Amino acid sequence: MVDSETLSTLETRLSDVVGEANISTSVSDMILNAHDAWPLSEARIRAGELLPTADIIVYPATTQEVAEVLVIANETGVPLTPIGGGAGTCGGTLPIYGGIQLDLKRMDRVLHIDHESLTVTAEAGIVGIELEEAVNRHGYTTGHTPTSLRASNLGGFIATRSGGSMSSLYGKIEDLTLGLEVVLPDGRVIECKALPRHSVGPDLKNLFIGSEGTLGVITRATMKLFPVPEKRSFRSMCFPDVHSGLGAIKEILQSGIFPSVVRLYDPNDTAMSVSVHFDVEEGDCMLMLAFDGLPDKVDLEERISADICLKHGAKDYGEGPSKRWWQHRYDMYYPTKFTTAGYSIGDTIDIVATYDKLEDVYHSMKAAREAHDAV
Amino acid sequence: MVDSETLSTLETRLSDVVGEANISTSVSDMILNAHDAWPLSEARIRAGELLPTADIIVYPATTQEVAEVLVIANETGVPLTPIGGGAGTCGGTLPIYGGIQLDLKRMDRVLHIDHESLTVTAEAGIVGIELEEAVNRHGYTTGHTPTSLRASNLGGFIATRSGGSMSSLYGKIEDLTLGLEVVLPDGRVIECKALPRHSVGPDLKNLFIGSEGTLGVITRATMKLFPVPEKRSFRSMCFPDVHSGLGAIKEILQSGIFPSVVRLYDPNDTAMSVSVHFDVEEGDCMLMLAFDGLPDKVDLEERISADICLKHGAKDYGEGPSKRWWQHRYDMYYPTKFTTAGYSIGDTIDIVATYDKLEDVYHSMKAAREAHDAV
Repeated sequence: MVDSETLSTLETRLSDVVGEANISTSVSDMILNAHDAWPLSEARIRAGELLPTADIIVYPATTQEVAEVLVIANETGVPLTPIGGGAGTCGGTLPIYGGIQLDLKRMDRVLHIDHESLTVTAEAGIVGIELEEAVNRHGYTTGHTPTSLRASNLGGFIATRSGGSMSSLYGKIEDLTLGLEVVLPDGRVIECKALPRHSVGPDLKNLFIGSEGTLGVITRATMKLFPVPEKRSFRSMCFPDVHSGLGAIKEILQSGIFPSVVRLYDPNDTAMSVSVHFDVEEGDCMLMLAFDGLPDKVDLEERISADICLKHGAKDYGEGPSKRWWQHRYDMYYPTKFTTAGYSIGDTIDIVATYDKLEDVYHSMKAAREAHDAV
Repeated sequence: MVDSETLSTLETRLSDVVGEANISTSVSDMILNAHDAWPLSEARIRAGELLPTADIIVYPATTQEVAEVLVIANETGVPLTPIGGGAGTCGGTLPIYGGIQLDLKRMDRVLHIDHESLTVTAEAGIVGIELEEAVNRHGYTTGHTPTSLRASNLGGFIATRSGGSMSSLYGKIEDLTLGLEVVLPDGRVIECKALPRHSVGPDLKNLFIGSEGTLGVITRATMKLFPVPEKRSFRSMCFPDVHSGLGAIKEILQSGIFPSVVRLYDPNDTAMSVSVHFDVEEGDCMLMLAFDGLPDKVDLEERISADICLKHGAKDYGEGPSKRWWQHRYDMYYPTKFTTAGYSIGDTIDIVATYDKLEDVYHSMKAAREAHDAV
């Protein structure tokens, strides 16, 4: 908490920068921005705890305003925490030190679509689904569709180094981000130019991708675009166990075939998510696949992938489960279904491992979870 | 130049670390390491200038030795310049401050091939072609084949952020590098773990990829491997101008087809490199394509790409020019043909641009070159 004199100074100075209508000290705004999708926040609320709040929220509209806010934070020695969509699951946007919360939601414009280079430049506060729909209208896709797409924003994708559900074909956010504009903590603005790549020293934008707001405020980004695929096909393959499913995935990807979607559900997940709508047996592991691109290429990749799955002992479920997942892929996150059950809390965590360790990691995670009665 | 007392101290202390046989103060070794493939060095030699040399060269065999050498450099306040293959074209390995040159050529071992994850871990001093041939023997390729492959080494690929001639399919060095071991300037050793990717903060290895030896000494790396493709086909398409060639390339890549080789030769290049062996007309621009992977996929991608080229006005030259380039792709660099002509000097430079600027960049570069009577 800042003292009342400092707060008064902040109100005056920040109003001068963004206008009086674009700062807030209201309790309801503070509470709204005091949690993201971090399950521990939910647990604390249920336990009757008050979450730490900011002293003042500022909603800038331009990069220049962000820069001036950072200068004020420095000059007054007040902590500052940036917040975008507030869809993160690790608490990265929470104002645990109080002070200023820099809310980027007003910076939500699509600035430029380059139809030659297939890139889009947008402000960091744009919500993912709005960016995706804006480029869809021109026949493009960003290729970045995390489950949180309706609640998260562009700056957050980059600040958290996020991966989407089609990253096996289109790439993760670090592959999709061509250029960045960042306001450094002292208010200086730097631009990492939107280039396909370069070899003029290290690629500085990678310092900010994944920096969770600690090294600067991402205000603008230029992202790759892809043509909306001429064809997208879905295929579902049901394996007798995780081992055979992973074996098939490894063979598909290592042979140079890149489906746009590759999701293997373990027996628990298959029972919870798939068995409601499709007839599966206990222990079954459903693999959801999708293929994007030119029709002939899609057909070929689907055929090769299906052959590999069958060789690894899968039963062919056609497009059903995979297509159903696709149609409901954003449902869980927002409006949230995570926390509706009174006595349970849902969490999500991404784990990465090379193939030599992947199955061990899976079994270890499962054992660790089960040791705490988690499903 | 360091003074004789310091040099004597260095000889003693560095010998203690790497053994007397693995330091050198001989003039011939100094001269050998005083230039890389930077054309300006060649120009200076021809002008009768002496190039700056190191005072002492040290050839460590282990990461621990590299770390101890860096500690000695710090303690004695002597400049240190790492050198790998010495194949760079920008002078990055030249000991312009004198002092110690840290030569990594003895650190040339393949340490581990992971047949599950398809990765190879090797020491930074291994020459590119030796690494490639070592993994070829197991049925793999690194996918990284710059023209300099016979003369450059793994650490240099990473330190210079290099791209190879098959990067359109397999990726550039920043895509291929999974893990790094780096000795920091103060002698501490850090490891960037060999993971497919992660989102635990920024990806630090990108600080060292492209750092040209300024932020640390890369001692070890874990790289992606790919199965040697079941099929590789070559196709050559001759365009009436650069514009139509670039148009075809853009359409191929943006449609989601990724040939392993995509090289468009402008009229000058086509006249110099292609017309000796194939019948082309003045102004022709030859596009060399190759396709790697499963046979059905290769055939499909070649067919789609050829159709796109023909649509953009190309004449089909079959596999000839492209295959010939492939067979001779390493010839120019080492043993070098750059500098054999008495009154000319060859240089090579990589330029990158998004499609909206690419053709302008090409014409501007060409005009700038021609203004200096360069071809």
